[in-house]
Amino acid sequence: MLIRCVVYENGKKLAEIPASDIHSYVCRPGCFVWVAMFDRDIALLEEMREQFDLHPLAVEDAQQGHQRPKLEEYGNSLFAVLQMIELDGADLRVGEVDIFAGPNYVLSVRSGVERGFRDVRERCESEPELLAHGSCYVLYALMDAVVDRYFPVLDQLEDQLEEIEKRIFVVDSEPRANIQALYELKQRLMTLKHAVVPLLEGVSNLSGARVPAMVSGLREYFRDIYDHLQRLNQMIESNRDTVASATSVNLSMIAMQENETMKRLTAYAALVAIPTLIAGIYGMNFADMPELHWRYGYPICLGVMAALDGYLFYRFRKAKWL
Amino acid sequence: MLIRCVVYENGKKLAEIPASDIHSYVCRPGCFVWVAMFDRDIALLEEMREQFDLHPLAVEDAQQGHQRPKLEEYGNSLFAVLQMIELDGADLRVGEVDIFAGPNYVLSVRSGVERGFRDVRERCESEPELLAHGSCYVLYALMDAVVDRYFPVLDQLEDQLEEIEKRIFVVDSEPRANIQALYELKQRLMTLKHAVVPLLEGVSNLSGARVPAMVSGLREYFRDIYDHLQRLNQMIESNRDTVASATSVNLSMIAMQENETMKRLTAYAALVAIPTLIAGIYGMNFADMPELHWRYGYPICLGVMAALDGYLFYRFRKAKWL
Amino acid sequence: MLIRCVVYENGKKLAEIPASDIHSYVCRPGCFVWVAMFDRDIALLEEMREQFDLHPLAVEDAQQGHQRPKLEEYGNSLFAVLQMIELDGADLRVGEVDIFAGPNYVLSVRSGVERGFRDVRERCESEPELLAHGSCYVLYALMDAVVDRYFPVLDQLEDQLEEIEKRIFVVDSEPRANIQALYELKQRLMTLKHAVVPLLEGVSNLSGARVPAMVSGLREYFRDIYDHLQRLNQMIESNRDTVASATSVNLSMIAMQENETMKRLTAYAALVAIPTLIAGIYGMNFADMPELHWRYGYPICLGVMAALDGYLFYRFRKAKWL
Amino acid sequence: MLIRCVVYENGKKLAEIPASDIHSYVCRPGCFVWVAMFDRDIALLEEMREQFDLHPLAVEDAQQGHQRPKLEEYGNSLFAVLQMIELDGADLRVGEVDIFAGPNYVLSVRSGVERGFRDVRERCESEPELLAHGSCYVLYALMDAVVDRYFPVLDQLEDQLEEIEKRIFVVDSEPRANIQALYELKQRLMTLKHAVVPLLEGVSNLSGARVPAMVSGLREYFRDIYDHLQRLNQMIESNRDTVASATSVNLSMIAMQENETMKRLTAYAALVAIPTLIAGIYGMNFADMPELHWRYGYPICLGVMAALDGYLFYRFRKAKWL
Amino acid sequence: MLIRCVVYENGKKLAEIPASDIHSYVCRPGCFVWVAMFDRDIALLEEMREQFDLHPLAVEDAQQGHQRPKLEEYGNSLFAVLQMIELDGADLRVGEVDIFAGPNYVLSVRSGVERGFRDVRERCESEPELLAHGSCYVLYALMDAVVDRYFPVLDQLEDQLEEIEKRIFVVDSEPRANIQALYELKQRLMTLKHAVVPLLEGVSNLSGARVPAMVSGLREYFRDIYDHLQRLNQMIESNRDTVASATSVNLSMIAMQENETMKRLTAYAALVAIPTLIAGIYGMNFADMPELHWRYGYPICLGVMAALDGYLFYRFRKAKWL
Repeated sequence: MLIRCVVYENGKKLAEIPASDIHSYVCRPGCFVWVAMFDRDIALLEEMREQFDLHPLAVEDAQQGHQRPKLEEYGNSLFAVLQMIELDGADLRVGEVDIFAGPNYVLSVRSGVERGFRDVRERCESEPELLAHGSCYVLYALMDAVVDRYFPVLDQLEDQLEEIEKRIFVVDSEPRANIQALYELKQRLMTLKHAVVPLLEGVSNLSGARVPAMVSGLREYFRDIYDHLQRLNQMIESNRDTVASATSVNLSMIAMQENETMKRLTAYAALVAIPTLIAGIYGMNFADMPELHWRYGYPICLGVMAALDGYLFYRFRKAKWL
Repeated sequence: MLIRCVVYENGKKLAEIPASDIHSYVCRPGCFVWVAMFDRDIALLEEMREQFDLHPLAVEDAQQGHQRPKLEEYGNSLFAVLQMIELDGADLRVGEVDIFAGPNYVLSVRSGVERGFRDVRERCESEPELLAHGSCYVLYALMDAVVDRYFPVLDQLEDQLEEIEKRIFVVDSEPRANIQALYELKQRLMTLKHAVVPLLEGVSNLSGARVPAMVSGLREYFRDIYDHLQRLNQMIESNRDTVASATSVNLSMIAMQENETMKRLTAYAALVAIPTLIAGIYGMNFADMPELHWRYGYPICLGVMAALDGYLFYRFRKAKWL
Repeated sequence: MLIRCVVYENGKKLAEIPASDIHSYVCRPGCFVWVAMFDRDIALLEEMREQFDLHPLAVEDAQQGHQRPKLEEYGNSLFAVLQMIELDGADLRVGEVDIFAGPNYVLSVRSGVERGFRDVRERCESEPELLAHGSCYVLYALMDAVVDRYFPVLDQLEDQLEEIEKRIFVVDSEPRANIQALYELKQRLMTLKHAVVPLLEGVSNLSGARVPAMVSGLREYFRDIYDHLQRLNQMIESNRDTVASATSVNLSMIAMQENETMKRLTAYAALVAIPTLIAGIYGMNFADMPELHWRYGYPICLGVMAALDGYLFYRFRKAKWL
Repeated sequence: MLIRCVVYENGKKLAEIPASDIHSYVCRPGCFVWVAMFDRDIALLEEMREQFDLHPLAVEDAQQGHQRPKLEEYGNSLFAVLQMIELDGADLRVGEVDIFAGPNYVLSVRSGVERGFRDVRERCESEPELLAHGSCYVLYALMDAVVDRYFPVLDQLEDQLEEIEKRIFVVDSEPRANIQALYELKQRLMTLKHAVVPLLEGVSNLSGARVPAMVSGLREYFRDIYDHLQRLNQMIESNRDTVASATSVNLSMIAMQENETMKRLTAYAALVAIPTLIAGIYGMNFADMPELHWRYGYPICLGVMAALDGYLFYRFRKAKWL
Repeated sequence: MLIRCVVYENGKKLAEIPASDIHSYVCRPGCFVWVAMFDRDIALLEEMREQFDLHPLAVEDAQQGHQRPKLEEYGNSLFAVLQMIELDGADLRVGEVDIFAGPNYVLSVRSGVERGFRDVRERCESEPELLAHGSCYVLYALMDAVVDRYFPVLDQLEDQLEEIEKRIFVVDSEPRANIQALYELKQRLMTLKHAVVPLLEGVSNLSGARVPAMVSGLREYFRDIYDHLQRLNQMIESNRDTVASATSVNLSMIAMQENETMKRLTAYAALVAIPTLIAGIYGMNFADMPELHWRYGYPICLGVMAALDGYLFYRFRKAKWL
């Protein structure tokens, strides 16, 4: 589905045009066309391929979707694949945007997520001195927007982690729920990592010593994206490390709970076993057991039982077994 | 066993020829011969070595089989070894294809798997403008087919993993079966990894800055294979990581089951021990135990036993020990 | 908030000036202005951007704060972000200093920590022959000060670790407290690592073969910082490794405590079960049980119970179960 | 101990000579001397040093032995150290061969293993067209032989691993024996790895872009060795990984056995505790316990005990606790 | 503290001189001064700095001590920091030697360890043809001595490890002591690693393709040191790996001991519970219990108890629970 198709000249919006008029603007010097598509419309992509002379392998990737993030040069044009990640409750929804950028066109194909790039277009149009850099500035602006949207996602994952951390050292926590929460959190961090890491490599080629001619004037801008990606990557790694530590702490907590359960078991068993033994002794049928005939034999016996249990209870409490 | 031997000229099929006629076509400019073999036929390979002047070390590798995937240059020809992986129920069957490619010939030797390259040949013949690139395009098409066939295999391994994941958090799951399933899955992922990773390095040499003259026109095509291999590699790594997490979760679940078993043991033991103690007390033979002579002594005693157990049961339920 | 703004000429302090006079000194050859700010004052930063012609992306970073440590070239000026770490009881407080350095100016923006750079300025002013190197020497002095302040922080973390290590092999230690202490220590080491590692890479660019023109005369000084960072990094890694070992030792200790608890349980259960069995036997109602009618039957019976328990106790002690 | 000393000319054996005649052949163009020694004979090595003008540091290494595998250039000669590994029952015996190779000599010093290089010499002599490459071909043939002999060793270690794997999932396996077997297997894999990995690096220098002049004609042969070493390395790594998995599976099995033991304990304890409680109740001495006077009170009581136990047994069986 | 200060000319000792005469020799061509110091004498170091024109940053490092091993170029001189490690019972004592080497001087500053370099000086003086290489040969000789002294230290750590390994598979070993021993051993290996690894990098710069002019004639000698360091590093890594395996084996052993303890507990509990149940049954007060009145009722009952226990004992023995 075509969303918008606009021609820009020297950083200013010239006109919104139908897709069929692209060919008459695409060769005009100083002009570039910015086309935004939603969902993989195979026929439309085929039409764009002809209008902009896109490379068949890149178009094939965009038609199939579900690519790994990457940044490829085809002659003097660039093809970028980025994953877009949105929050969907506690879960993540993963979409994709494929960007074709040549000297006089930018084509973005978004799919799988709701939020589009209307705000990016508006900000670009409000800064004509930057948009005058041409189509490569739009490429920068789109990539920058996608990368900046990773931060609130990561922030929420960090909040989830912090919540689990709070629960984990509490004595009566539910280790089973913690394990599951940590497991799912780890998977989500991995999803984010898979969006960030392959991109890191691609963007480094746009900000290093030898960059494609097309983006040479914007090296510092792409270095800024690279820097954000590195920050994301470090934060993800750090969170994954913490998840691993928390998992192992949780495991230790299970082991310790078991240990404590066993101690309590021992303690209670002793509290019952001792009077049972005494009762057994005075249940014996020996002919001559003088205690049995004492006047207060029975209450004394009960008293001894209670006294022994009281003493044991005191000892167990002191040893923190109970 | 020779399957087919066909001569192509300018991307079009010229003739299907017997092996013995190869020498009369192999020197004709603009022509190349595409030979497909099945199973390592040592004599036939020897004949091919003479026809195409193959390097003895490469032929030796093809005769022995069970090589590591690799891509080697011998003068102006290439020798590629790829592992082919087929599903065999839940298990994997590993075969091999050795491809010799020179300026005017391509020779593929397949072994160990059932599915051949008939569809590759048909697609090539249906796109003469691409086949006109010559023998190196056939090399690309064969490698692309082998790599694309890894994806459904990996998809099935991911399905197996997902199924185990579903079982793992269920309270009464069978941890022993889970462990074995995870262990076997890990081995299968390793098998796939061993097919992918060594190839990654080899293919990167066909798509980087300095490629062999023979494939220079197809750099972007080989980069596409490289990209697929990287995607596979990332997916395999991600799955291995998940298998590791799942294994550790499973271990935690075992520890927790043990803990719960122990709590239940404690609870049931208490439910029996308390009335046993009471019974012991009233089994004592003291001369003067007034309760023994109460009219409703016995039913009261039984009632107290039941009441204590009822209370304990309620407490254990509340503490989730039962 | 502006702290100070001083002009230096040939290593000597010329004058303390208000911010508005900067423009009249910044173009004087042989002079440079050193401005120190506290907290991110957005308006003031904007003013500085105009005075020193700073790059907008760098200023944006300084205005937002919470950047990853880095060292970036913008034309012939440098932009450095460093994290400042202060002890706050056992915890760490993380601040930031952003340094802009051009041929004739240095601007530092500190935030989040209390201790400033007054001592750095004083030491610089007391060594005019070094300060004569110009603004890049101030950059060095500031970075050196920040890095040197990491050492006492790391020292305290090492002290905390040593204290935990001492507790860990003690038999009756509290494993739960140890785990939590190790977990928190690991997080603190990670915080420090995140300050050090990204900087390592940046500083290596100021001390390697190809350095920016501005710092070329001070290569050995920046190599010294690099060396300190490497030492810090190795110490941090080594401590993290020790924390991991200690955590695993602690886990083993929990398992062993459990084992010992179980042995004690077994032993005590046996000490009670044996006399209970004997009591049970002599509580049987067989018509003909001669022992019951022995004269000293009862005391003998009690004696046997005590003797058996004494023997068992001796055996358990010897086997270290009790 | 000198084994043999033979002069070759243009790939053909010229004469077997005593060590003292070496000097008269070593300068003849087109000739090379191949000397094989067994055990480190310090005096003989000293003599060889003079005859072939070997570098003192290399000779020192050969005299001391127990070197790390390596490949070093000394001027226009090469010095190679390889570890030879033989099976000694289930264990490994590690020996060493040091090879000095110059334009007109090859000297091999073997020690610590039984099997020599007689078969290598015979195969070389039977292929004079290859031996005509000169001393560097002998270097290749020796190295190839050593590396090829690693494969059967690795095969046996894989067999050992497979055997352990079969035992590990069996319910009543002996976990203690498995652990020890896995531990020893891991050590053996490490031994093999230490023979392979350092060599990998050295051989890569003989097969890469810039090789020593002496071996330039045999680059593809050394690449073949390199390929074998990589295959070995991958197989070793894969086996080590499997050993690690198997160890962790074994640990899980121990935990599960414990869990099952505990369940069985609980079940059996219940089977005894219930009738004990009933017996306790009817052992009470209440004056008025009507059941005691029922005609079939005793058999009914026994029957109830049996019935309860039967029911419990059925429940435990169903829950797989017994 | 100054130990010795000697002038050498063409590899031969010229004279032992006081520190104050250094300046008159240091400019004589073909001469070099070798100064040995013990402990960081700040004043003396300051004097040396003036005599040899040392770089202030290097002198500062030597004055502070506790540096990371490193090798730095300052103009045409070298500054090396090495850690010296001595055995102190089972423990390690870590010292440091700082070496300044310029074209006509070598200055070594040793601290923290007892053993000096007297033997190095003697061996150098006994090989004047090597010492004629000048001050850089002394640098080599000192570094070689330090590195060679690591081997006996590592050997002893390996002995300690072997001893622990022997204990670990013994059934009744003390797991607590093993854990502590492994923990301490790991720390010692780490200490050694920290001496070796940073040096590895430094020395590789003296033996690679592009070396400082000063050491160019001794490249193969420094490569020898590099080779030793690599061997040490591999041995350390291998030992650390074994320590990790042994730790995990030890943990498994603890789990298995626990399992066995529990089985024994079950078995003994059963041996007591069964006769207790029987005694309980015959302690019931049913009016009509015919067995009670059998003539041999009591001995038969005891016999049945003993027989059941005997049978159980036999079964438990067979199942290896006892």
